[in-house]
Amino acid sequence: MPRQQPRPRIYLAGPDVFLPDAAGRGAALKAACARHGLDGVFPLDPVADPPAAWTALPEARRIALANEAHIRACDVLVANLTPFRGPSADAGTVFEVGFMRALGRPVFGWSNAGEDFLARTLRFVGAGARAGPGDTWRDGEGMLLESFAMTDNLMIDGAILASGGALFVQEVAPKARWTELSAFERCLAAIARLHPAA
Amino acid sequence: MPRQQPRPRIYLAGPDVFLPDAAGRGAALKAACARHGLDGVFPLDPVADPPAAWTALPEARRIALANEAHIRACDVLVANLTPFRGPSADAGTVFEVGFMRALGRPVFGWSNAGEDFLARTLRFVGAGARAGPGDTWRDGEGMLLESFAMTDNLMIDGAILASGGALFVQEVAPKARWTELSAFERCLAAIARLHPAA
Repeated sequence: MPRQQPRPRIYLAGPDVFLPDAAGRGAALKAACARHGLDGVFPLDPVADPPAAWTALPEARRIALANEAHIRACDVLVANLTPFRGPSADAGTVFEVGFMRALGRPVFGWSNAGEDFLARTLRFVGAGARAGPGDTWRDGEGMLLESFAMTDNLMIDGAILASGGALFVQEVAPKARWTELSAFERCLAAIARLHPAA
Repeated sequence: MPRQQPRPRIYLAGPDVFLPDAAGRGAALKAACARHGLDGVFPLDPVADPPAAWTALPEARRIALANEAHIRACDVLVANLTPFRGPSADAGTVFEVGFMRALGRPVFGWSNAGEDFLARTLRFVGAGARAGPGDTWRDGEGMLLESFAMTDNLMIDGAILASGGALFVQEVAPKARWTELSAFERCLAAIARLHPAA
């Protein structure tokens, strides 16, 4: 019998941890990973053998260190980039995208908001937006809006593409924004193709 | 004569690149660094010897790769975490905090908004906020608010503290939020103390 390859480990970054049934959501995301031959790691999963020094830290710092440890132990990061409390993705998720990018491993992103970043930011800025020379826009404080036809801030899109990952974006009605998983499933299918042993 | 130590290189992450006079802002931040014996690197600085392959990429992707290269070539990252278009810091800045944290180098943060993350997020969520059991709050979609008395998402504060960096926060009137640099200067003074050779 051929030796069993370990399944690629996928860190599931996203604001999903803030959902009312975060544990159920984590289980659903991990079940989808398993269907694609992947081993999903949810941020709320316990860390194996946390260092004794962590016990002296406040809860928020222990969570941060646990998430960093989970990312370091994963092969790929998949980020739920659906905008969260503003035109961009959740800040913790964006941090984790940057973290995994610096480790040099593939980062994939998915989003249930189809509008590009400029359109979304214009809507957020509202009446304060002013058009400038070229195709530029500034908000009421004079701060530039990015206008690169990207999904989010250029560091996020740029990192995903440079890492060998990809972005899967679709417009989902607001009431299904935190339940619909088809863009996520397309992400997993793309990762499974990268890991034919999976 | 003793050999001259190179000055520590400080990557200046922040939404400062979106200011109307971004070049002038970069010069001001770098001048402050120099007063503290530090060598500031602004995201808009040109990269020395960019790889030839970059020329085929769209502008946004070249900028992303240039910023990553700048961060890799720096010893410390200083992030302007003043909230930007929502309760959290600018997404590009947060990405860069995560990137530098994964490289294992010190990350410092400063902010001109004195309120903690929970208070800011409650104000952003507005009438949709609902109190739950314990000291928990959820927004109109049922998504949890972090309530850890931190400056921003716990990944950001946690990474800064774990990296050996520190946070400098003060409340600044909205009209001076993108000009006042005293929290930034306190950041630089702390970094200079870490590098007594500087």
